[in-house]
Amino acid sequence: MQIDLNADLGEGFGPWSMGDDSQMMTLVTSASIACGGHAGDPETMYRTLMQAKQNGVSVGAHPGYADREGFGRRVIPMSPDEIGRMCAAQIGALMGVAALVGVPVTYVKPHGALGNLAARDRTVADALVAAVQRIDPALAILAISGTQSEEAARAAGVPVFSEIFADRGYLSSGQLVPRNQEGAMIHDATEAAARLMGFLQSGLMPVVDGDPIKLAAHSICVHGDSPGAVDMTRTISNYLTAQGVAFRPFIAP
Amino acid sequence: MQIDLNADLGEGFGPWSMGDDSQMMTLVTSASIACGGHAGDPETMYRTLMQAKQNGVSVGAHPGYADREGFGRRVIPMSPDEIGRMCAAQIGALMGVAALVGVPVTYVKPHGALGNLAARDRTVADALVAAVQRIDPALAILAISGTQSEEAARAAGVPVFSEIFADRGYLSSGQLVPRNQEGAMIHDATEAAARLMGFLQSGLMPVVDGDPIKLAAHSICVHGDSPGAVDMTRTISNYLTAQGVAFRPFIAP
Amino acid sequence: MQIDLNADLGEGFGPWSMGDDSQMMTLVTSASIACGGHAGDPETMYRTLMQAKQNGVSVGAHPGYADREGFGRRVIPMSPDEIGRMCAAQIGALMGVAALVGVPVTYVKPHGALGNLAARDRTVADALVAAVQRIDPALAILAISGTQSEEAARAAGVPVFSEIFADRGYLSSGQLVPRNQEGAMIHDATEAAARLMGFLQSGLMPVVDGDPIKLAAHSICVHGDSPGAVDMTRTISNYLTAQGVAFRPFIAP
Amino acid sequence: MQIDLNADLGEGFGPWSMGDDSQMMTLVTSASIACGGHAGDPETMYRTLMQAKQNGVSVGAHPGYADREGFGRRVIPMSPDEIGRMCAAQIGALMGVAALVGVPVTYVKPHGALGNLAARDRTVADALVAAVQRIDPALAILAISGTQSEEAARAAGVPVFSEIFADRGYLSSGQLVPRNQEGAMIHDATEAAARLMGFLQSGLMPVVDGDPIKLAAHSICVHGDSPGAVDMTRTISNYLTAQGVAFRPFIAP
Repeated sequence: MQIDLNADLGEGFGPWSMGDDSQMMTLVTSASIACGGHAGDPETMYRTLMQAKQNGVSVGAHPGYADREGFGRRVIPMSPDEIGRMCAAQIGALMGVAALVGVPVTYVKPHGALGNLAARDRTVADALVAAVQRIDPALAILAISGTQSEEAARAAGVPVFSEIFADRGYLSSGQLVPRNQEGAMIHDATEAAARLMGFLQSGLMPVVDGDPIKLAAHSICVHGDSPGAVDMTRTISNYLTAQGVAFRPFIAP
Repeated sequence: MQIDLNADLGEGFGPWSMGDDSQMMTLVTSASIACGGHAGDPETMYRTLMQAKQNGVSVGAHPGYADREGFGRRVIPMSPDEIGRMCAAQIGALMGVAALVGVPVTYVKPHGALGNLAARDRTVADALVAAVQRIDPALAILAISGTQSEEAARAAGVPVFSEIFADRGYLSSGQLVPRNQEGAMIHDATEAAARLMGFLQSGLMPVVDGDPIKLAAHSICVHGDSPGAVDMTRTISNYLTAQGVAFRPFIAP
Repeated sequence: MQIDLNADLGEGFGPWSMGDDSQMMTLVTSASIACGGHAGDPETMYRTLMQAKQNGVSVGAHPGYADREGFGRRVIPMSPDEIGRMCAAQIGALMGVAALVGVPVTYVKPHGALGNLAARDRTVADALVAAVQRIDPALAILAISGTQSEEAARAAGVPVFSEIFADRGYLSSGQLVPRNQEGAMIHDATEAAARLMGFLQSGLMPVVDGDPIKLAAHSICVHGDSPGAVDMTRTISNYLTAQGVAFRPFIAP
Repeated sequence: MQIDLNADLGEGFGPWSMGDDSQMMTLVTSASIACGGHAGDPETMYRTLMQAKQNGVSVGAHPGYADREGFGRRVIPMSPDEIGRMCAAQIGALMGVAALVGVPVTYVKPHGALGNLAARDRTVADALVAAVQRIDPALAILAISGTQSEEAARAAGVPVFSEIFADRGYLSSGQLVPRNQEGAMIHDATEAAARLMGFLQSGLMPVVDGDPIKLAAHSICVHGDSPGAVDMTRTISNYLTAQGVAFRPFIAP
C-alpha cells in the first residue's frame, strides 16, 4: 500500500510565515507551493523550493487569487480567461524560481476560493486546465475526485490525480461536509489516521449521512497552517507507516 | 544593412497605460515587456504579447524592481541573489503568459535602476545572468556594449546582444551623457535618424567630448513612453528604411 | 441659478496618470480624490490636493475597494464592517495628506463597485456613513438621489448632497440606464449641456421610458477619465455659464 | 518611580500575524501600531486598536516605508518631502480607523529603516516632524534621546519623548551597539530587568566601552515580534513592579 501526502506550503509573505514549513517538509511527499498570488514572493518560493529539494518532496504550483489581504479566500470577479492568465503568470513565476533551485514543478493545485470555483464551474476549470497544458503538457492537476477540475483535465488529456482530506468529514455525495456543519472537521489525529487506514484498506470512506462511499485517491491532503498541523501530520504519518503504508509522491520529483 | 529596433512596452498596470503600445508595435522589431515587477500584470502582459505576435515582433522579458510606485527607477536594497530570484520569478511569469499566447520569450533586458545597477555591478550582473541561464540557456541578454551585464553574459556563455540609444548623447568613454548634462538628449527626430544612419554606415558614434567612437550594436533602443515617442520612432524608421536599412529582430520570434 | 460641478480626480498611481487632472481642476468646483485604494498614493494625492487648492476647488474623499488591478470596479467580498474600516483608513489617509496641503476634506463619495453597492445595500451604506460620521461629523456624503447611501446618511444625521450625471441617461425610476442599453450615454456635449440646462430651469429630467421626472441635485457629475472628458466638461461649463448658471461648490472649501 | 513600556504592535498583514499582540497588550502601556506601510491593513489596525482600548494602552502611529516584502527595513530612495507625505497618509489612515474604535492617536514613532534614517538625517527628521505637526499639533514624537528626530521635534515645538531599549547594549556615545558586534543584545530577561532597574534608580546606563552614561527616558521599548518577546516583557514588568516601579503611558490614552 502506498499513497502521497500533500500540504499547501510556502504560504508566507515577506517577513511573515504561515505554519511550520521546515517540519512539514520532513513529513509530506508533495508540496503545493504558493506562487506570489494569495501568498508567496520570490524569497519565500526559493526557501520553500530549497526545503522541498532537500527533503526529496515533489513540487506543485498552488496559484490563487492575487488577493493577499484575503489570502485567496475571496472570489475576485474575473472571467475564466482572466483566471487562466493569472494562473499562467503565477505558475510561470514558480517555475522560474524552481529553475534556479533545480527542481521540477510537477503539478498544479488551485488554492482556496479559486480551487472551490474551479471545482464547481467548468468554464473556470477549462481555463485553468488549458493554461496548465500550454505551459507544459506534462504538468498534472491535483483535484478532488468528482469535481469539474478533474473532469476538465480528463477531457483535455491533462494528467490528473485526486486527493482526499485527512481531517474533513464527507457526505454521501462525495462532497465535504460544509465547515459550519457537525462532522466537518476531525480534530483527533488518531481518529483521522484510523479513518485513512480503513480507507486505504477498503477504498471506502465513511460519511456522516449514510454508508461508506467509494473514493479515488492518489494523495492525502493535510493542512500545514493550523497550530496543531505538524502534530496531526506526524501522527497520521507514523500510524499509517506502522500499518505498512509507504508514502511516495504521486509524481516523482 | 540591417538592425533591430527595440522599445520597452507593456508598461501599463491594471487600468493604467503607458505610451501607445499598439502604435509602437507596428514600428519595432523587438519588444521588452514588463513582467509584473515595476509594471505589468497578467492582463497587460497578455495584451502586449498578443500585439507582439500579431506584428511579428520578437519578445524579451523586462524585469525590474518590484516597486510600482517608483516604476523600478529606485534602487531597492537587495543582495545579488535576491535580485536573481526576483528576476527569475518575473521572467517566469512572462513566459507563463507567453505560453498561452504561443510566442517565445527570446531575451532579457533589465529595467531602470536594476538595469543601471547590473551595468556597473558585476555581482548583480552575474546573478541576473545565472538566473537567465538556468531558466533557459537559449535566452539572450540585451545590454549596452561595454557594461558588466554584457561581460557577465559573455563569461557565462549566455548569448548577448548590444543596443544603442536613438535619442541619447554619448561620451567618448562609451557611456551615456548623464541626463542632467548638456547633450544628454537628442530631441529632434531627424537629427537622431541621421546620427543613427551615420553610425550604421561607419560603425562610429559621435560623442560630445571628442572624436567619434566605435560601438557595437545589434539593436537601436527607442523610448515608448514619452509623448512624442511614436512620432520619433516613425521618423527614425522611415528615414533609415529610405536609406536602405532593413529592420529585423536580433533574434527571430 | 447655481450648482456644483464634480469629477473623480487623482485617479493615477505611481508613474501612471488617468485623465487630465490639471485641466479638469480649472473646470470643476468639487474634486472627489482617490485615497490609495482603487487608485492614488501619497504623491498623487498630494499633487491633486495642491491642484485643488490652487483652483479653489472643494475636496472630497473618494474611497474604493483596495483593488488597483480592477480599479475598484469589482466587488471584493467584504462584510459591511470591513468596508467601513477600509473606508475609514482611506479617508484618513487623504485627510493626512490634506493636512500637509492645508485644505479641508469636506465630503465623501464612494467609488465604482463600492459606490454601486452602497447605493443598493443599506447595511453597506450604514457602515460607510457610520465611518464618515465618526471620523468627522461635519463630513458630508455625496450620493445619487434616492439611493440607500442618501437614506443612510439622512437617517444618521450626516449631511448629504445629491448629484446628477451629465452624460448618463435616466429611467423613470430615477435610476441610470444600464450601460449596455440604448440611451445609457449621451455622447454629444451640447446635447448634454442643453439637457442639464433644461433640468436646472424645470427641475425635471428627461427619461428614456416616460415623462420627465423630478430629481434633486446639488452637483453635476462629469467624467474625468475618458479621452474627451475635458472637452465635454468645458462645453457644458461654457454653455451653462452663458445661460447664467454660476458654478459653486456644494460645500465651500 | 514610573515609566512607560512600549512595543511595536499590529505588525501583521492580512492572514499573517507577527508576535503575540494579545499578550503584549496586557503588559505594555503604549503601543506603536503599524499603519499599512511596512505592515498592517485596516482589519489588523482595527483589531490592534481594539486590544489597545480594552487594555487602556496609549496608541502611537508607527509609519514605515511602504515595503511589505522588506518589512520597512530597507531604505527606499525618497526625498524628505516624499517621506513626509508617505507618513502623513499612514498616520491619517491609523487615525481614521482609530476614530471608529474611539481611541486617540497620541504619538508617532517611525519604524525600521525610516526610524534609523530620521535619527541621523535632519532633513528627513524635519519632514517627518512637519507632517506630524500639521496633522495635529498635539501629536508627540517618540524618539531615541540625542537623535535628529528628537532635535527636529524640539526645534519645531512638537512634544517629544525618549525611549531606551530593554534588550540592546549601549555605547558611550549614547548610540546602540551595532547588531553585528558583541554586546549588542541582552538575551537574559532578568539581566535586562536588573539593568533597567539600575538605570531607573541612577539615571545612568551601563555601556560596553566605558563608564555608565546619563540618558533620558520616558519609555522602555521592548520587542514584540521575537519568539521570547512575551516572556522577556513579562519578566521585566514583574521585576520592575516588584521593585516599586509603576508603569504609566507617557501620554494618557
